[in-house]
Amino acid sequence: MKRKLTLKSIAKELGVSISTVSKALRDSPEISEETREKIKAYAKLYNYKPNNIALSLKNRKTNTIGVIIPQIVHHFFTTVIQGIEHEAREKNYNVIICLSNNDFDKEVLNMELLANGSTDGFILSVSKETMLKEDYHHLNEVIEQGMPVVMFDRVVEGIKCDRVLIDDKEGAKKGVTHMIRSGCRKIGIITSEDYVSVGRLRTEGYLDALDDFGIEPDDKRILKLDNIDDLSDKSKKRIEAFIIKNDLDGVFTVNELFAVHASRVISGLGKKIPEDISLVCFTDGQLSEHAVPSLTAVSQHGEEMGRKAAAMLIDKLERPEDEEEEYSTAYIDTSLVERESTKEVIKR
Amino acid sequence: MKRKLTLKSIAKELGVSISTVSKALRDSPEISEETREKIKAYAKLYNYKPNNIALSLKNRKTNTIGVIIPQIVHHFFTTVIQGIEHEAREKNYNVIICLSNNDFDKEVLNMELLANGSTDGFILSVSKETMLKEDYHHLNEVIEQGMPVVMFDRVVEGIKCDRVLIDDKEGAKKGVTHMIRSGCRKIGIITSEDYVSVGRLRTEGYLDALDDFGIEPDDKRILKLDNIDDLSDKSKKRIEAFIIKNDLDGVFTVNELFAVHASRVISGLGKKIPEDISLVCFTDGQLSEHAVPSLTAVSQHGEEMGRKAAAMLIDKLERPEDEEEEYSTAYIDTSLVERESTKEVIKR
Repeated sequence: MKRKLTLKSIAKELGVSISTVSKALRDSPEISEETREKIKAYAKLYNYKPNNIALSLKNRKTNTIGVIIPQIVHHFFTTVIQGIEHEAREKNYNVIICLSNNDFDKEVLNMELLANGSTDGFILSVSKETMLKEDYHHLNEVIEQGMPVVMFDRVVEGIKCDRVLIDDKEGAKKGVTHMIRSGCRKIGIITSEDYVSVGRLRTEGYLDALDDFGIEPDDKRILKLDNIDDLSDKSKKRIEAFIIKNDLDGVFTVNELFAVHASRVISGLGKKIPEDISLVCFTDGQLSEHAVPSLTAVSQHGEEMGRKAAAMLIDKLERPEDEEEEYSTAYIDTSLVERESTKEVIKR
Repeated sequence: MKRKLTLKSIAKELGVSISTVSKALRDSPEISEETREKIKAYAKLYNYKPNNIALSLKNRKTNTIGVIIPQIVHHFFTTVIQGIEHEAREKNYNVIICLSNNDFDKEVLNMELLANGSTDGFILSVSKETMLKEDYHHLNEVIEQGMPVVMFDRVVEGIKCDRVLIDDKEGAKKGVTHMIRSGCRKIGIITSEDYVSVGRLRTEGYLDALDDFGIEPDDKRILKLDNIDDLSDKSKKRIEAFIIKNDLDGVFTVNELFAVHASRVISGLGKKIPEDISLVCFTDGQLSEHAVPSLTAVSQHGEEMGRKAAAMLIDKLERPEDEEEEYSTAYIDTSLVERESTKEVIKR
């Protein structure tokens, strides 16, 4: 069987990056003329069709949505996918999912794979590496070819697409406000360094809540960890030290894993949750629900986010061609799920 | 844009099931001649190509694996997908994922969608509804067209394909044996009704372990719940009653959710884990790892299962065409992850 010539195989053969091949075939001035000519000659020789996206679009509508996510072993992403599926199904669309594994090249290849006649448009959350590289040519390419894109959760500016975001700041504010209303005054936050946008926004929400009640913030009560996605041994130790050395009556964490570990540390100190220390986390997943005590959590409504992203994409796909393009950002409201780790709000 | 004619649209237009359309186009004698003729005439009139699978196969190799799973908000399936991704990546294959949502029609449509030139072969775990209907024509169809299939976890007999299974019986036996060796003699099991094959096999493993140590089984110590996938209020009540009324020194559960609830009930009774009652569950996920106390668990090695399934499929795809077809079943070994919910094994 003959293998299909792909961006990847051209890149490998010519010893350049996938991104370079992709850009050269679109005649991007970022690539030197010599390299562009070489790549285009090779593509022509072996009959690579850079315009297959446009060709397939002219010929048919696939009624299929392509979804590209950075990782799959992640409760939040799976709930978003479930929402996309439900909305797509109601509107008679199929859904195809690919993973980037937080890898730029993989994300580019996935888009090439799906844009090649398999889908009408994309819903995606960009990979970490793509954000670091700030290289979004693959997104711009499919958009130029007439395939609409909706970005969710990890979104970037400067792309002609719709966006769906969670109101991280407001969500954190809700959680911290709830603790203050139930009597807490010395509330700490376990968050991430500011370069992780969700960490930064949730820290802002925490500070906003304190400010609303005239509580002076204290830098010692803010713990910023490097990694928000997993709970390393180093993070565990820092959480332990933070809770032991601070005199806290409430802890807000930006994810479930931090909260589960904080809960373990608090109990280990012989303190009671919520009587001595209240605990609220961002993200309402299985861990919050089944922890002992169960955790009051800010629900991100991942399924609703998926539904909204699919609805926005399908709306673009079914809009008359002569209508002017407009792009918008939708915010999904968070809500507080009250459980055993917080006290009752004090009635005034 | 012109919509593509699909099995679904033909079925809707003619008021028959998707399965009927699919079978009629293959001239299946299961369908009456009159219906067959009607469907074929309609398909011809609107230029539906039932043989596009074969056509696409003759023309090219996609280097893409199609994965169809029943649900995605499920830690085990996501780890299997991660394994498939890793193996595929190493061998230069792409992976496309579709969800059946445990729905027969959706599974058939997904296979049609992906078989239509997007993939070289399939890895799938069949939907509950497909198992109930016992209708596997869509699997047989792609296999006849030359696209190999590997089934995992929920597999069925009588299909020409490779299979990857977890050794459920052996896994349960390991968990129960560990409790016996650490001194438990009155061990209960929280499992499912026997028609759920994983529940039945894990119960068999429990009985085997008791038998090995000459411990008489006791029906009162076996709780069979209806649903293995979620923890309903009814199941919670039954777990509570089971633990309260039985005099147990060990509990084995066939999934994490049952164990997490059992742990809550045991602690609520003022009993200590593992000193008074040991606890072991099948499935090593986030809940087992982060529970307090953390749970000793039988790991299913989902990632390894995914890797094996992908390796078997790629092996079939890259085998010379004239080699004879052989099908095999691979068993993925389980292992016991010891944590806080069990005592140390007594040395003799």
